[in-house]
Amino acid sequence: MASNKAVAYKGAGVVEIIDTPFPTFELQDGPGVNPENVGRKVPHGVILRTVATNICGSDQHMVRGRTTAPTGLVLGHEITGEVIETGRDVEFIKVGDIVSVPFNISCGRCRNCKEGKTGICLNVNPDRPGSAYGYVDMGGWVGGQAEFVLVPYADWNLLRFPDRDQALEKIMDLTMLSDILPTGFHGAVTAGVGVGSTVYVAGAGPVGLAAAASALLLGAAVVIVGDLNEERLAQARSFGCETINVANGDPADQIEQILGVREVDAAIDAVGFEARGHGDGATAKEAPATVLNSLMDITAAGGSLGIPGLYVTGDPGAVDEGAKKGSLSLSLGTGWAKSLSFTTGQCPVMKYNRQLMMAILHDKIAIAKAVNAKAISLADAPRGYAEFDAGAATKYVLNPNGYLDN
Amino acid sequence: MASNKAVAYKGAGVVEIIDTPFPTFELQDGPGVNPENVGRKVPHGVILRTVATNICGSDQHMVRGRTTAPTGLVLGHEITGEVIETGRDVEFIKVGDIVSVPFNISCGRCRNCKEGKTGICLNVNPDRPGSAYGYVDMGGWVGGQAEFVLVPYADWNLLRFPDRDQALEKIMDLTMLSDILPTGFHGAVTAGVGVGSTVYVAGAGPVGLAAAASALLLGAAVVIVGDLNEERLAQARSFGCETINVANGDPADQIEQILGVREVDAAIDAVGFEARGHGDGATAKEAPATVLNSLMDITAAGGSLGIPGLYVTGDPGAVDEGAKKGSLSLSLGTGWAKSLSFTTGQCPVMKYNRQLMMAILHDKIAIAKAVNAKAISLADAPRGYAEFDAGAATKYVLNPNGYLDN
Amino acid sequence: MASNKAVAYKGAGVVEIIDTPFPTFELQDGPGVNPENVGRKVPHGVILRTVATNICGSDQHMVRGRTTAPTGLVLGHEITGEVIETGRDVEFIKVGDIVSVPFNISCGRCRNCKEGKTGICLNVNPDRPGSAYGYVDMGGWVGGQAEFVLVPYADWNLLRFPDRDQALEKIMDLTMLSDILPTGFHGAVTAGVGVGSTVYVAGAGPVGLAAAASALLLGAAVVIVGDLNEERLAQARSFGCETINVANGDPADQIEQILGVREVDAAIDAVGFEARGHGDGATAKEAPATVLNSLMDITAAGGSLGIPGLYVTGDPGAVDEGAKKGSLSLSLGTGWAKSLSFTTGQCPVMKYNRQLMMAILHDKIAIAKAVNAKAISLADAPRGYAEFDAGAATKYVLNPNGYLDN
Amino acid sequence: MASNKAVAYKGAGVVEIIDTPFPTFELQDGPGVNPENVGRKVPHGVILRTVATNICGSDQHMVRGRTTAPTGLVLGHEITGEVIETGRDVEFIKVGDIVSVPFNISCGRCRNCKEGKTGICLNVNPDRPGSAYGYVDMGGWVGGQAEFVLVPYADWNLLRFPDRDQALEKIMDLTMLSDILPTGFHGAVTAGVGVGSTVYVAGAGPVGLAAAASALLLGAAVVIVGDLNEERLAQARSFGCETINVANGDPADQIEQILGVREVDAAIDAVGFEARGHGDGATAKEAPATVLNSLMDITAAGGSLGIPGLYVTGDPGAVDEGAKKGSLSLSLGTGWAKSLSFTTGQCPVMKYNRQLMMAILHDKIAIAKAVNAKAISLADAPRGYAEFDAGAATKYVLNPNGYLDN
Repeated sequence: MASNKAVAYKGAGVVEIIDTPFPTFELQDGPGVNPENVGRKVPHGVILRTVATNICGSDQHMVRGRTTAPTGLVLGHEITGEVIETGRDVEFIKVGDIVSVPFNISCGRCRNCKEGKTGICLNVNPDRPGSAYGYVDMGGWVGGQAEFVLVPYADWNLLRFPDRDQALEKIMDLTMLSDILPTGFHGAVTAGVGVGSTVYVAGAGPVGLAAAASALLLGAAVVIVGDLNEERLAQARSFGCETINVANGDPADQIEQILGVREVDAAIDAVGFEARGHGDGATAKEAPATVLNSLMDITAAGGSLGIPGLYVTGDPGAVDEGAKKGSLSLSLGTGWAKSLSFTTGQCPVMKYNRQLMMAILHDKIAIAKAVNAKAISLADAPRGYAEFDAGAATKYVLNPNGYLDN
Repeated sequence: MASNKAVAYKGAGVVEIIDTPFPTFELQDGPGVNPENVGRKVPHGVILRTVATNICGSDQHMVRGRTTAPTGLVLGHEITGEVIETGRDVEFIKVGDIVSVPFNISCGRCRNCKEGKTGICLNVNPDRPGSAYGYVDMGGWVGGQAEFVLVPYADWNLLRFPDRDQALEKIMDLTMLSDILPTGFHGAVTAGVGVGSTVYVAGAGPVGLAAAASALLLGAAVVIVGDLNEERLAQARSFGCETINVANGDPADQIEQILGVREVDAAIDAVGFEARGHGDGATAKEAPATVLNSLMDITAAGGSLGIPGLYVTGDPGAVDEGAKKGSLSLSLGTGWAKSLSFTTGQCPVMKYNRQLMMAILHDKIAIAKAVNAKAISLADAPRGYAEFDAGAATKYVLNPNGYLDN
Repeated sequence: MASNKAVAYKGAGVVEIIDTPFPTFELQDGPGVNPENVGRKVPHGVILRTVATNICGSDQHMVRGRTTAPTGLVLGHEITGEVIETGRDVEFIKVGDIVSVPFNISCGRCRNCKEGKTGICLNVNPDRPGSAYGYVDMGGWVGGQAEFVLVPYADWNLLRFPDRDQALEKIMDLTMLSDILPTGFHGAVTAGVGVGSTVYVAGAGPVGLAAAASALLLGAAVVIVGDLNEERLAQARSFGCETINVANGDPADQIEQILGVREVDAAIDAVGFEARGHGDGATAKEAPATVLNSLMDITAAGGSLGIPGLYVTGDPGAVDEGAKKGSLSLSLGTGWAKSLSFTTGQCPVMKYNRQLMMAILHDKIAIAKAVNAKAISLADAPRGYAEFDAGAATKYVLNPNGYLDN
Repeated sequence: MASNKAVAYKGAGVVEIIDTPFPTFELQDGPGVNPENVGRKVPHGVILRTVATNICGSDQHMVRGRTTAPTGLVLGHEITGEVIETGRDVEFIKVGDIVSVPFNISCGRCRNCKEGKTGICLNVNPDRPGSAYGYVDMGGWVGGQAEFVLVPYADWNLLRFPDRDQALEKIMDLTMLSDILPTGFHGAVTAGVGVGSTVYVAGAGPVGLAAAASALLLGAAVVIVGDLNEERLAQARSFGCETINVANGDPADQIEQILGVREVDAAIDAVGFEARGHGDGATAKEAPATVLNSLMDITAAGGSLGIPGLYVTGDPGAVDEGAKKGSLSLSLGTGWAKSLSFTTGQCPVMKYNRQLMMAILHDKIAIAKAVNAKAISLADAPRGYAEFDAGAATKYVLNPNGYLDN
């Protein structure tokens, strides 16, 4: 059996490359695997040789020690791969296919999957609806920041690229289909972004930039991105966004300078629970309700907030008692007076990935450039995590099997 | 000029019948009238002789002294009337028409009105989008708990009943079209209620009962209404709802007894910011976030919350500092993990009132019976307010001109 | 191996009960089986013992000899059954489950299935998108008017009833979930029927009656059903519809008598290509464009037409050259001037069957009574076909294994 | 009273510049004015000095003598102007505003207007729902290919440009907001075009080009435009479309060469009833059902057809008896087998013009360039009509008052 090097969480602030078992068509016990999933048969799965696998901001929540992730957890839920072996029950996916893996694991058989709600599949996580690879408290499916990875319900989950050569040529864009591009797009769609919209995106990390690029793809008239990090804001400007540094005063004032009015049609929270308060970046304190309260302030009456940024049910390291239990002090009265709507939760990737693949293949969006994608070796993953955590305006793409140029 | 008796707020806990000026086609100064609206010409308006005008739960917020409503404010935004005079610019509405007045005042000319968002019209309230008759901080349009009332932009705002005799025969149902029936329906629609849904409605006041009746009209399989008030719960059972008394323990446990599962597909908050904590009714304390947090708990992943219950931007009489500023401690992490959506705000009545009128006229909904509508004289309004505030399972309909049987 | 009696088409006007092979997890050659499907492995399938299986109007098209259906074709696509054996790859459906089978066969793995378009699955019919059991030119999946039947992709396709006893008690209603109830409901939904709508349904056969009952479930204010058959119209009146006999003159005139206006908000074509002209029923000639042209006439500007009635690509027995090729002379100019919309095609049953099951289980629709369902033995199927073809206002439900009372 | 030069229809093939009365706030009798509209008071109207007014393909139907348009009818429904006088009842629009006029005239008071269906307003045309300026059988509102024009219900109908200088700078783009840009956009939206779609547009006239540009704005992956006119196809290629000359064989074959598959996701009919058969352009005969039948053939199962191209209820000059009555021989069986949907009718301009204005003002669409807009003097209108009718790949914009550079 081949070895399988993988990126693992080894304690707060520490990730390491470890040797892990080669995947088989059965879910083995290991760090973070739900006991009820141990021994689960996966004849409907395929084994992928990883082509590209990205470091995600939500991985950082675990790596910073903000979760109950166990030591040894193999990370990685942004996976693109080549099929090297198919389970007994796989009918349509074939060995040699280059495929994108939605980060949400779903069964394709339950009520929610039938309704397109693959982010809350009922059959993959014994604890609750919804699952993901390599993530704490999500069922225990092994992460894909590795040389090889098992993908269950492959005929349902996988998006096959139509042409291998074309796929490998555009792989730095296509690798964003597993999570951040659909996630940003979902943020834009649920914020009601359409042709002619004015849009504000809170956060210029990869999801924020993907949301901004998605808003432009959807025909938005003006997209304004706000952050504290100037390097990331420069990245946003590189593809046509307006930007504001939230350290420089009230976002509404800055929006007024750009638009002539203090409110936008649609707003996207691409930050989540680890938000920092506005004001001087160096000293801004964590203030988990800041982003949402700010968005209620600057969204015009009748608008919608798309909230792809993660909010957790428990956060032991939070700054106040409420936040530790996942409670936030929200100015709901403001939102109510303005008839706002709010959409939360994981993006159901399958709802969007085929159409976004078409947009990439036909050069309608340059997402790799927008998020400044950079391929690094698997061995360099710890450095990638560290640089990303330090605020680099870069999306790190791991290259475990040499498919990428890095 | 005829006199015009009206119901006015006279201080915390006090309403009185007062003499007020007969309406003209110009907005006069008076208690609560926005200075920028004083002297506003209303040639597009009509004067109605009131046929029916209801006491609303949101009036109670003012009467309890929970708002900055000025003494002398004429109350009433649930108005049905007969047109007795039309302004110069009125083209389609005629004297003698029996009409329903949406509680939202809207101009029919701004972007929001053109998009059907009449709850946030841009041209009727100088302070912010959205307006209503007889309501604090809503522009200063005079309330309709009176013998006569002015309705601006009449061709746009009014819903004409097709036949006068038929209208007067069903008037106790039709009077609910000005607010609570569309408001409850909007709650159901925005909660995603459809054929076969399981639904939970928090609150068995008139809006909650209207939401429950609306959910049934929309084809819901099971509608469960929760409240602390047994008389109101009995009212809910009278038209086919299941009920739970939230004083008797965890709603999820009680829902499980009814449905076999602990969660519903869709949930409606018909309570709002003056929610009381669950537990023994007599001692339950105000706990403004209780309802929303409970609804996040009992709504299945992927569900939606319709929130017609009012949340305010400021509530000086609130129990804690956050609530005084309109902030609530919400378990957003729970909602996010379940991919919930939330819709807040005033119901845009015009979006629904014509179709609901058709349902009433063709006996598809018996809303007067569902909410236990009771006609009382204008002079009895203070008693109506008091009984309603004390928890009577009754919707009080004022009868200022003798059109109703009471 | 047990025998498997089944209803087969034996030539124009002739159906017989024949002995057929017991199903196995492989698609065998036989009358009407697409050569490319012969030998197809079905490890994802289950074998059902049929609980109820209905005769459908679309079966009549074949039995009348209007299609190229081959002699010996086993009929039947409206199937409810008990699972007696599960294929190797079936994970969630269990032996003993009582299940409804959507008449559309779909894979649950292709783009269209992922988008909820199960009526045009790409993987089950080698000739074109879409398939069905026991139907000419639909891939060759064996029909279910039989004692036993194979259902492929069972975890995806089957709707499990939550409780066996409850299911058997309501089985005459639940058996309508395999086709006519969702099909009628789809007609109503795509016609834009909602709360307060006025609706016209062309055709009082089972699909028309199901569409009418669905429209009422959706909250329609008035549902008018038109047909030439007085017995079927009486059936429509039995559950609250208005009716018009199209032999008695212009439908618009008759609609005006009911509604006061000559047009409805929404219209449903539950007749299809074998429409007869309006006028005296006994002599009415086939006139394939009659229904659609009439619906364009009586639908108000801005309305929609739901068209669940079948239109075929070729009809050798048609009355004119155009119709033989599936062409109809449509007054599209009338439709265009009124900004009408049109939705055609098979109902994607899975989109609606769970919610309609909930409505049945909670007594929100009495579909068996609405369509006058009548259980008959398998041996009586030829009589059922004959009576139905003669215009009986009855929905015949075959009872091959004695689960039903007949 | 100033004179008012205008373009008038003077018989088949003839348009002339004539002197007409200066508009007043009352609808005067004249060629084509509905008798019931004569003398109608318009205090809610404004008088515009025309800034730009375009020649439209649908004007050509009249000019070719294909309609019952009376001699002397003043043409023109694509109007942008400066407000020079406001009626007594106009409240929000001001003298000096530069405004776009939706070609649909609507009242902003009827049920259809309230539902956003301004193309079928109930109060502006005594004969039927829907109206337009300068068009046969549309109520008799005077056309806008003139120096001055009256616009009724001005507060409702007009779209004000936010800044006069900016508006005049982009006027050649903004003038397309009165009709062809929203009309093409409506075609794309109703065809279901979204991010990643493959799209076919039948017809490379101005509406077809606007539909193609709209599809790209909506994020389409590939837009293919088909026509017989090579000059117009070159225009389509100029902004990123693929093209096919339908004279060069089966569109499906040509689509396959571009996409690798024979069908597109979405199709738009921008041709209408004067379609010519495919094949050699010079000899192609009129074949009114050609386009729709072709689109049913090349649209993938589950797709939608947007049909902004005009189909008329009567066409005395048509090639066959059916077409003379507005009937077409449509292969509905093909459409039904593929579960296609169809949306017909006038575009409700107001639904889209604000958002498209935003897209223009922020440089997200270059519609003037896409349609090759060219300003000509009012006196040159006859030449513009002739060249356009001869197939020039040009959108002619009349310049009656010297606002444009020509």
